[in-house]
Amino acid sequence: MRYADRVGWLEDRSLLNAFELVETDDMISFSAGFPSSETYPLDDIRRSMDRVIETHGEAALSYCSTSGYTGLREIMRRRMKDKFGLEYDLDELIITSGSQQGLDMSGMLFVNQGDVVLFESPSYLGAVNALRAYQADLISVPTDREGIELEALEATLKKWGDRVKMIYVNPDFQNPTGRSWSDRRRADFMDFMAGYDIPVLEDAAYGELGFSGNLQRPLSYYDKKGQAVYIGTFSKIFCPGLRVAWLCAPREIMDRYLVLKNAADLSSSTIAQFQMADYLEHNDIDAHIKDICEVYRHRCDVMAEAIDREFPKEVTYVKPKGGLFIWAEMPEDKDAGELLMRAGREGVAFIPGASFYPSGIKNNEMRLNFSNMKDEDTRKGIKILGQLMREYLNE
Amino acid sequence: MRYADRVGWLEDRSLLNAFELVETDDMISFSAGFPSSETYPLDDIRRSMDRVIETHGEAALSYCSTSGYTGLREIMRRRMKDKFGLEYDLDELIITSGSQQGLDMSGMLFVNQGDVVLFESPSYLGAVNALRAYQADLISVPTDREGIELEALEATLKKWGDRVKMIYVNPDFQNPTGRSWSDRRRADFMDFMAGYDIPVLEDAAYGELGFSGNLQRPLSYYDKKGQAVYIGTFSKIFCPGLRVAWLCAPREIMDRYLVLKNAADLSSSTIAQFQMADYLEHNDIDAHIKDICEVYRHRCDVMAEAIDREFPKEVTYVKPKGGLFIWAEMPEDKDAGELLMRAGREGVAFIPGASFYPSGIKNNEMRLNFSNMKDEDTRKGIKILGQLMREYLNE
Repeated sequence: MRYADRVGWLEDRSLLNAFELVETDDMISFSAGFPSSETYPLDDIRRSMDRVIETHGEAALSYCSTSGYTGLREIMRRRMKDKFGLEYDLDELIITSGSQQGLDMSGMLFVNQGDVVLFESPSYLGAVNALRAYQADLISVPTDREGIELEALEATLKKWGDRVKMIYVNPDFQNPTGRSWSDRRRADFMDFMAGYDIPVLEDAAYGELGFSGNLQRPLSYYDKKGQAVYIGTFSKIFCPGLRVAWLCAPREIMDRYLVLKNAADLSSSTIAQFQMADYLEHNDIDAHIKDICEVYRHRCDVMAEAIDREFPKEVTYVKPKGGLFIWAEMPEDKDAGELLMRAGREGVAFIPGASFYPSGIKNNEMRLNFSNMKDEDTRKGIKILGQLMREYLNE
Repeated sequence: MRYADRVGWLEDRSLLNAFELVETDDMISFSAGFPSSETYPLDDIRRSMDRVIETHGEAALSYCSTSGYTGLREIMRRRMKDKFGLEYDLDELIITSGSQQGLDMSGMLFVNQGDVVLFESPSYLGAVNALRAYQADLISVPTDREGIELEALEATLKKWGDRVKMIYVNPDFQNPTGRSWSDRRRADFMDFMAGYDIPVLEDAAYGELGFSGNLQRPLSYYDKKGQAVYIGTFSKIFCPGLRVAWLCAPREIMDRYLVLKNAADLSSSTIAQFQMADYLEHNDIDAHIKDICEVYRHRCDVMAEAIDREFPKEVTYVKPKGGLFIWAEMPEDKDAGELLMRAGREGVAFIPGASFYPSGIKNNEMRLNFSNMKDEDTRKGIKILGQLMREYLNE
């Protein structure tokens, strides 16, 4: 069978995803970016499901409008204002099937074959995969601990010129590095981008997962030009299995997202949207998020303490203040892929950092997930990794 | 903002979709293709939702594998064999977010810009929209009451040559015409297509909605070459609000669908898949489908009787034996769009046939949905349409 050209582009890289699958039940896996399923509020969700059928009946099982269930959109519109100071009209906020769909539709909306999409360095693998499907050239922009470096960004924009059609950023407790952009860089970045007719795709998946409970202003808050697209999701602050996420954009852009969403799946799951809305009406999700963050803060502490104890001094990391990941760096001549091969044989898995570079790949880093693991397993897995590193670094 | 070229292609046609929206609550609308929501088994669904949380707990709220929940896929694999004689391996059947996602991914998988996709004449608007997004030339192949005409198909394939990358068909009680392909044509068509390296996308959304309860063999049953892709959905035989559908394809093709599905939305709603599986395990969906078909058979009778009584003799139709639609034809010089304008003012809506032609548009036809309307409203709406037709035909 003859496939579209884009399929070849995807397949070239799909092996990288296989790292996520290097797992069996008895493995200690720091690979996946899953939230901790013990935190899911099962009883509250069950009560919501009952109430939804009781209250809405057939409507909850029928087709939904392409933009999503209005009740949920109203709640989220208020919440975006109250939590983040972001004011959207109702028709500037739609529901998507996970934030992944928002990424996919953004590629479809903005990217022609041969266009350039800019990323942080490193960046989120799901976004890289989604945008690669549109046959774009994916270019990493140098990124420091405060965010994308503006001088480097300017040089990149100059180099690629009109071919640049989008920039994707994940500014809060980033997947994979756990880094957050400073407030200053957020404002400066958006000021700078206002000079360009290029949409800024802000993936805010981890924005509420700060251990301190403090929230930063999203990039979108600093958008005066109407070029920011905000992608939010319940996957990390509630549960991923509903596949309910949202996307906010200025009206002119949103009208076009809607045409694409209609072609992609008509609408997201009606019943999942009603369940989410009911949960939000009858429960305090902020209290729930606070509980989750407490769990993750503890697990991060456990992993960081184990790393300090077990890893060789040459392996460095910056302890994150939120999110799900610790990003560790071996000396530059070492290859995390090689370490993974050895770790796999000892029953420990993680994802080598190379997977997260759209371009300019570095091989000596690794992403370690701490959200989804019992304390004793974290300590045991980090100890094994530390031993293997010691051997490998001495070779 | 600069958009991808495909956005322009979509927008050119998106006005057509507006016809679906020419509706207010007090309108009599024959427009939408919705199933009848009174048939949704609310109590059974509520019991399933409770059991799912009880039995599966957090697993029902976590990420699902990209191919879908194995429990549901096993059930559907068995059902495809038992009902249709279609034997698939487990890894040849995946769950999609509505059948619309299967259509969208098929465009992504097979279609480059400038390729040709073939359709019946007329064809399903959702498929036309999904494939237009991939900037294909959409070509209608002449279609008679038994299915696509093979001589015309041969001529079309000869004309467009290697540019043809897919053929999309909806062989059972088609949307919009209500026509079903004959068994003979199904077999002959697949024999013929075996001479070409072109995938056949079979949309079987209405396959179980025959009023007699008899099932025809799908096109895929006659596929000896491994070129058929089968798309099924629960939207019409159960309810659309879960957005659970399935797609079957030979392993080689399916591997590539999975890469695309992962990029599009990671996975479909976990909880919706568990709910669907639980319903199928604890209830007799065949009995449920029989009940639905009885409702639709009755509503079709009501509409057909009203048409026979109210429409001018020059307006013709063939009474369908299943599905949701009656397709009516005015004399060739008349425009159903003009009739719709007048009908809208009298509080009646339908969809003009022109919307359903990928190419070679005809303007004198209309699609009338009968599944979603009370008997008295159907009679009243058809009476109004009949009066308006009489006036219009006399001009």
